[in-house]
Amino acid sequence: MNQDRFARRMAGMSTSEVREILKVTERPEILSFAGGLPAPELFPTEELAVQARALLEEEGVRALQYAPTEGYLPLRDWITERMNTVWGTQVTSSEILITSGSQQGLDLTAKVFLDEGDLVWCESPTYLAALGAFNVAMPRYEEMTTDQDGVILDGLEERLKKSPPKIVYVIPTFQNPSGRTWSMERRRGFMELMTKYEIPVIEDNAYYEVRFDEVEYCSLKSFDPKGLVISLASFSKVLCPGLRVAWVAAAPEVLARYIVVKQSTDLQTSNFNQMLVYRFLKAYDFDQRLQRICDTYRVRRDAMVAALEEELPVGMGFTRPAGGMFVWLEMPEAVDAHALLQRCLKAFVAFVPGFAFYPEKGRRNTARLNFSNLPPEKIRHGVRIFARCLAEEMEARQPQAALTAGK
Amino acid sequence: MNQDRFARRMAGMSTSEVREILKVTERPEILSFAGGLPAPELFPTEELAVQARALLEEEGVRALQYAPTEGYLPLRDWITERMNTVWGTQVTSSEILITSGSQQGLDLTAKVFLDEGDLVWCESPTYLAALGAFNVAMPRYEEMTTDQDGVILDGLEERLKKSPPKIVYVIPTFQNPSGRTWSMERRRGFMELMTKYEIPVIEDNAYYEVRFDEVEYCSLKSFDPKGLVISLASFSKVLCPGLRVAWVAAAPEVLARYIVVKQSTDLQTSNFNQMLVYRFLKAYDFDQRLQRICDTYRVRRDAMVAALEEELPVGMGFTRPAGGMFVWLEMPEAVDAHALLQRCLKAFVAFVPGFAFYPEKGRRNTARLNFSNLPPEKIRHGVRIFARCLAEEMEARQPQAALTAGK
Repeated sequence: MNQDRFARRMAGMSTSEVREILKVTERPEILSFAGGLPAPELFPTEELAVQARALLEEEGVRALQYAPTEGYLPLRDWITERMNTVWGTQVTSSEILITSGSQQGLDLTAKVFLDEGDLVWCESPTYLAALGAFNVAMPRYEEMTTDQDGVILDGLEERLKKSPPKIVYVIPTFQNPSGRTWSMERRRGFMELMTKYEIPVIEDNAYYEVRFDEVEYCSLKSFDPKGLVISLASFSKVLCPGLRVAWVAAAPEVLARYIVVKQSTDLQTSNFNQMLVYRFLKAYDFDQRLQRICDTYRVRRDAMVAALEEELPVGMGFTRPAGGMFVWLEMPEAVDAHALLQRCLKAFVAFVPGFAFYPEKGRRNTARLNFSNLPPEKIRHGVRIFARCLAEEMEARQPQAALTAGK
Repeated sequence: MNQDRFARRMAGMSTSEVREILKVTERPEILSFAGGLPAPELFPTEELAVQARALLEEEGVRALQYAPTEGYLPLRDWITERMNTVWGTQVTSSEILITSGSQQGLDLTAKVFLDEGDLVWCESPTYLAALGAFNVAMPRYEEMTTDQDGVILDGLEERLKKSPPKIVYVIPTFQNPSGRTWSMERRRGFMELMTKYEIPVIEDNAYYEVRFDEVEYCSLKSFDPKGLVISLASFSKVLCPGLRVAWVAAAPEVLARYIVVKQSTDLQTSNFNQMLVYRFLKAYDFDQRLQRICDTYRVRRDAMVAALEEELPVGMGFTRPAGGMFVWLEMPEAVDAHALLQRCLKAFVAFVPGFAFYPEKGRRNTARLNFSNLPPEKIRHGVRIFARCLAEEMEARQPQAALTAGK
């Protein structure tokens, strides 16, 4: 079939780079920092096995039949309670829509908000797959610069006056890819601006509860008097991703649009999976389970940060995330992370070059390293190889770097 | 939030009428012909309970982790084998993508093919929720007239020459809403035309294997030398809808686009659900189960057709479906099915007015009646009430009908 038989948007869509890298890294001999996989040894397989059987025996007909688009009410109630207790929000169950993974929350967002050419603001860098979801609507992007405390507010109001975005997409807590967390001050200041100019804010909270250190934060929804914040969150990182159960929290008149669009997207998220997640949450101590995940990842984060400090040349920048799954690395300008990746793959280590995480002007000298999916000793071993490859790559680039500097 | 904060497409999207009717009909005192629910007493809850537990105990980590977008390969192999054995196709597993329900196949179709203003051809009437999925891309629609043998081919080539559609969407087998099945001759003739003009054909096979009578048919993919046919199908009607496991079959270069788009839509369909469906198919006799579904529905179809023949005035047109879940009713021109529905609801009977199933010019005197979700005695009882209400409605409309006739 000729390219012109397809929609125009298809010309700009290709399999994501990360996906292609992940295919290579599926080979068992590879030490992979590339994916964003939770540690599977922490999945509660035995508990879910018991609950799945009981669910089908006791409520099988309901679990296997069609069900309302909004989702399973007891689960929405649980989420409401959780958000209001832990996230600093004041939502009701009528403000919660269950989605098929948080990626679907992004897809629905594109449908609800974005016309072709609409302007989307996002952090620099931002979550790659959000761009993939938004790209279906063919918007334009502008980046907001960031530092260790989140989005830099200076200059933002001038931009809002000149050409306000249709939506803003942010990941304020344990960001993918950078691992950064916005300070409370930035959260407050950011929401003051967005409220003043009435800009819808998509807050991606996929990693919200995967915390290792004492840091203060709350959902942007806590500073949202006009109902502008749409919060996306998920059970993928705190339970398991394979059930594909996540949610959107938004003001009723906004959520109504998400529900209409969700209906034509996939009718509903599997009722069986929703009921299974709910039974699990009722039967076991969720906080205790979450603690085990956080404790395990903290050790891995520590291992990665320590190894990077030890192995990398002094002055190389990388983040020390207080939660989440990723460390973000900024290497010397001369280093192209794609070339480095090729070198690393030959040494059986993988990571994701940072280029694709920038919608406007990708920085080729950045890299994302995942630490959730490998035990500490493998992390240390992998970082050593990575550092060696980086040193070789810098060495190889030296003449070119000198040339560039001499221009 | 103001309407102008949302995408333009949202102005044309509202909760589907069927959905609103279904909300009313959830009340237990209502005898409902409105939904499209499979008979839940046929769901294999006990078998799935056993398999779900075994799956999580034996392959839990794999079932609960992220997985490739394409879907679980053993399930795609099973589908391939099934299609090639029963559907008359010659596909390979690399031409199968697992989707989250067949509704998602429609959503992906809109993304892959449709730009704003693109022309979509569909049957008159057609499946309502397909329009919902396509509407996100804001296409235009033209209907193809149909009779008992399917789409009427006369005049179609002239239309193809003048203004060919971007895609054609058809449900050739046990159509929702009409219950009609295309003859082999029409299938062949239709595909000759589409092949000549190279029009992508979306074939919706949601009801394909729910057959009561001996009728000859095969997938349009059997007449597809140029790889133009995209077949959508599902386990919802032959196993259960709650697991949300369905598939798209298409030529590799077309399927590649569906995979890219599926990735940004929801990453993947629940691996757990895919593996569960596969284990079920391996452990039990699928054909025997399917036979029980078909046998049960045949009795219900017979009950509905017999009751309609008995209760309705002579000359009232309705279909006698050889499979699927629906009977389609054409009432006298003067009858407005929406008014009739209000009358029926007061008598505790529900159905879906046919108006919304026509994208171009809805016929207000049509109705869709579902027979899969009620036992025969309730069907007979409900049809009696329906017929009484219809008689009352015709009586009430008489003056207006006379007036219209006199114009």
